[in-house]
Amino acid sequence: MNEKSPAFRDVDESARQLAHKLIRESRAASLAVIDAATGYPSASRCLLGTDLDGTPIILISSLASHTQSLQHDPRCSVLAGNVGKGDPLAHPRITVLAEASSLDRDGPDYARIRSRFLARHPKAALYADFADFRFLRLTPVSASLNGGFGKAYVLTREDLTIAVEEPAAWLSLFEELSSVADLPAQLAELAGATVKSGWRIVGIDPAGVDISSTDVTLRYSISGLMGSPAAMKAALTAAC
Amino acid sequence: MNEKSPAFRDVDESARQLAHKLIRESRAASLAVIDAATGYPSASRCLLGTDLDGTPIILISSLASHTQSLQHDPRCSVLAGNVGKGDPLAHPRITVLAEASSLDRDGPDYARIRSRFLARHPKAALYADFADFRFLRLTPVSASLNGGFGKAYVLTREDLTIAVEEPAAWLSLFEELSSVADLPAQLAELAGATVKSGWRIVGIDPAGVDISSTDVTLRYSISGLMGSPAAMKAALTAAC
Repeated sequence: MNEKSPAFRDVDESARQLAHKLIRESRAASLAVIDAATGYPSASRCLLGTDLDGTPIILISSLASHTQSLQHDPRCSVLAGNVGKGDPLAHPRITVLAEASSLDRDGPDYARIRSRFLARHPKAALYADFADFRFLRLTPVSASLNGGFGKAYVLTREDLTIAVEEPAAWLSLFEELSSVADLPAQLAELAGATVKSGWRIVGIDPAGVDISSTDVTLRYSISGLMGSPAAMKAALTAAC
Repeated sequence: MNEKSPAFRDVDESARQLAHKLIRESRAASLAVIDAATGYPSASRCLLGTDLDGTPIILISSLASHTQSLQHDPRCSVLAGNVGKGDPLAHPRITVLAEASSLDRDGPDYARIRSRFLARHPKAALYADFADFRFLRLTPVSASLNGGFGKAYVLTREDLTIAVEEPAAWLSLFEELSSVADLPAQLAELAGATVKSGWRIVGIDPAGVDISSTDVTLRYSISGLMGSPAAMKAALTAAC
């Protein structure tokens, strides 16, 4: 082992799946910014969503100091990964270094990103449309994945991002499958749920489905990328 | 309200107690540093302890990139506060901006800080004495306390720090009270515990007592500062 840097493992499909899972299953994330007033790195709590391609999305108030800091310097990171039971350091987590950019309310991606975020965080609907709130896209630069003691990986933007063609068709699949009564609970069970009821689908992308119940969001990961919503629907039908 | 900064409340005793509580009850904290390799603010997970006076203490490996970053630039912050049930943003948390400094293993404070940290995080005894691990003192510069929506405070180093005379006498009190069979459970109940058993005292200082069971640490806060270990012992005896 190099004395100056720990040994990193080669990034494989399971590391990428774990990265996707950690970002999507986090109840809350820590956002680090360079505080504009002091120059110190400052960590604060935020809710985390994703765009269809996995780009992290946050919703913050322009009155908060972290927002003003990001306007001054868009470099940031988000730490994702739930603490779980037992030793907090035994649970995997990921730090994504990213460039923050404000999402234009009149832009082509706004409705999709807003609806995905509010599906995952329904209470945020209370303030998402307030004049001082903004969705920010955190475009990944790189990431450090810690899968537990001795399991460290450095990921690229490509590792974190899921190629999506025809976003609108994936949203249609989401709407279609959201109304299939037993599907969310079946997927939650496949994803290892211990909670029994209250599951709803909160996102579908070519690499998996995100399912939420009170206080828990789980990722059902697909092996390989589904090339179309139809292929995803077939894979989910086969699995459940 | 000023458009550029949210209204901050005046810091009172209950805000200080909440700050002390959040730092001591956190199962895990987020450490933000300026990444030496990229200049980005980077957040990572760490275990949090405190010195007797409330100064945050972390234990990290010199092989980890955050340690190398702190050697390059000691400015950092820790975000403390458990997420709890329901909306993560409804739960209080605190960001402490601080200067990190490595603790000398031969220094006068080492044994006290090590024993306090390991009382709180017993599993860290497995690696605390490894050659590459160091305790770091995070001397507070200021803090931002978010007590939930609309309850924001800016705290000074003085707000976070508890004056302690004769540290050795407080450690003796800790050792004495740790062996009193029912006391930890009684204090945990007073601090609002829902877990029934397994409580042990993990720290005593002039403003309160920290009690841990599996996965839960609670702070029993004293009204006002106890001027001596004897006064604290009398106060705890009266309360239980």
